[in-house]
Amino acid sequence: MEKKRFFIEIAYDGSAYHGWQIQPNAISVQEKLNHALHTLTRENIETIGAGRTDTGVHAKQLYVHFDSANALLINNREKFKHSLNALLPYDIAINNVFEVSIDAHARFDATSRSYEYHMHLHKNPFLINRSWHIRELPNMDRMNEAAQLLLGTMDFSCFSKSNTQVHTNICTITEAKWTQIGHTIVFNITADRFLRNMVRAIVGTLMKIGLQDLPVSYITEILSSKDRSMAGASVPAHGLYLTRVLYPYV
Amino acid sequence: MEKKRFFIEIAYDGSAYHGWQIQPNAISVQEKLNHALHTLTRENIETIGAGRTDTGVHAKQLYVHFDSANALLINNREKFKHSLNALLPYDIAINNVFEVSIDAHARFDATSRSYEYHMHLHKNPFLINRSWHIRELPNMDRMNEAAQLLLGTMDFSCFSKSNTQVHTNICTITEAKWTQIGHTIVFNITADRFLRNMVRAIVGTLMKIGLQDLPVSYITEILSSKDRSMAGASVPAHGLYLTRVLYPYV
Repeated sequence: MEKKRFFIEIAYDGSAYHGWQIQPNAISVQEKLNHALHTLTRENIETIGAGRTDTGVHAKQLYVHFDSANALLINNREKFKHSLNALLPYDIAINNVFEVSIDAHARFDATSRSYEYHMHLHKNPFLINRSWHIRELPNMDRMNEAAQLLLGTMDFSCFSKSNTQVHTNICTITEAKWTQIGHTIVFNITADRFLRNMVRAIVGTLMKIGLQDLPVSYITEILSSKDRSMAGASVPAHGLYLTRVLYPYV
Repeated sequence: MEKKRFFIEIAYDGSAYHGWQIQPNAISVQEKLNHALHTLTRENIETIGAGRTDTGVHAKQLYVHFDSANALLINNREKFKHSLNALLPYDIAINNVFEVSIDAHARFDATSRSYEYHMHLHKNPFLINRSWHIRELPNMDRMNEAAQLLLGTMDFSCFSKSNTQVHTNICTITEAKWTQIGHTIVFNITADRFLRNMVRAIVGTLMKIGLQDLPVSYITEILSSKDRSMAGASVPAHGLYLTRVLYPYV
């Protein structure tokens, strides 16, 4: 049978993994997925994800594309999904499998990515590995004012890990908002693309503004410096979730 | 200083524990609490909980009483709470510490206990050890009709582990209700008291009615039989949460 291209919608608890991307000497989500796909199809399937997540970061929604001529996949996607879920460990779930056009690309075609960062104020036994436990409530108004200054198309070098091989550090942020519900604080951010470590560096910097006596305009200073050492420390990975990836055709 | 009596409001993820109650050769929540209280006060403190939970069962709210003459506890309960939380592992949290009258009793004075049982229909990496993953949606209407027949004061021997040393198997159930929200199904139940294993046996029996072609009246038959072997199998512990304990004075 001729190969067709498919998208998989995947979710995972990142606690046990060295991120999404396959790498030597470390367990990744992609490796687990590739292995399960190989077991099911007996094909050597190459998967391409919408983006990478760092060690310990979670995904509620990540799209992955791959090509296959597997008969079960082509004829009964629900059954294929069920079998794939049964082969994967409990902390990786396939929520959807669907055919796309043969030139669709999970990474290049994605028009926006959204992340959530979760923090909580009181010790909560049910939030271990799910949310960052903080001791002090930051100033939410000041953090939201500072977050507004991130909106738009800008050079975000100051929030990027150095030595990463990207052509440009320009991103367009369309959403950056803090919300508090009871003892839980959530930061929502959406952009066309993110640099490595960018969300955790932004959260750390906004927290610095919210907890210390720093003016909101401090964020503009950091942005124009393009200097990573000016920004706040990265916050822990286990509070971060990739939550939504959009395509023109999904 | 004279000893005073205190209530602790505690929550825990039961995954790592052989239940609340202290016992030889198994790790219990009570043992961890007693140990932390001893470290903090240097007193040999005896704790009494509102009830026991089985291995793997969670508690969002359980009250415990104990007597102490500890100066920090008497003079600065917030600081005592903070120190106790720091001594306890991440999966046990103290949400409140307050003084009660010297004859208050966490177990005997409790007027009602509430439990929740959580189930989910689709594989979800974030619900491991938090909710029971079921494959098929039971008939919610029939399960709710059957649940209504449990309301009132009755002999619930049919849902109790045999060989337990209680004077009576009579309980008064005041709430028994199923709710579905998206892929999540929750059962809420409240009674003055529960027998050992009772909630999980009730859930298993209602699920049997909801999944098989059994009439709602089957529950009445089981109740009058007083025979544990008539009821459905116990559902797994990790979906069960003790959620609320009420006192006339809290």
